[in-house]
Amino acid sequence: MAMKKVSHKDMKGTSPEGTKGVDFRPLLAENVDPPNYYLRVFDIAPGGNTPLHTHAWEHEVYVVSGKGKIVLDKREEPLAEGDAVFVEPNEVHQFVNDSRRNMRMICVIPKPK
Amino acid sequence: MAMKKVSHKDMKGTSPEGTKGVDFRPLLAENVDPPNYYLRVFDIAPGGNTPLHTHAWEHEVYVVSGKGKIVLDKREEPLAEGDAVFVEPNEVHQFVNDSRRNMRMICVIPKPK
Repeated sequence: MAMKKVSHKDMKGTSPEGTKGVDFRPLLAENVDPPNYYLRVFDIAPGGNTPLHTHAWEHEVYVVSGKGKIVLDKREEPLAEGDAVFVEPNEVHQFVNDSRRNMRMICVIPKPK
Repeated sequence: MAMKKVSHKDMKGTSPEGTKGVDFRPLLAENVDPPNYYLRVFDIAPGGNTPLHTHAWEHEVYVVSGKGKIVLDKREEPLAEGDAVFVEPNEVHQFVNDSRRNMRMICVIPKPK
């Protein structure tokens, strides 16, 4: 195997269960089968959100464009272009677009075992 | 430990050895000590590049803005906003900005052992 390129514009987006106003494109995931972690892109429309949930793996997120917030168990934090977020395994979290334009973010997860 | 946010604008950039015209900010790396992988941001100025090199770990790259190209052993491939690239462990590679404006990209690597 050698370098593989996958373009956001060439992949069809889906709306994962529990999301609202979300276009999800797993650019480097099962399609490429990388050894250690998956890189996925979320576009969250104004008023949209991911579910408030928790799971046993971490997130590493980077906000590519737009703004919104991350909601946690006892607080929330604004997010804007250029912000990166590390979400701990088992930490309750939700991404919300409370702005008037699209928020795009990268979310990297460990490869599922 | 709980959620940590690190903003690109709050971190001082450096120019790693062998790079030209590069501003490097490791947003989620030693500073946060995530368990499995590091998320870093590269800004490559027009005419700039990373070194043509190889190493034992993979890259997962996402082009946030601008355009340029990736140079490999026997070919090169244009890169533009929204493109993701998986670079194999031990694959010779170089990122080059041959355009007239800044190229920003995310590069995720496994946590060094």
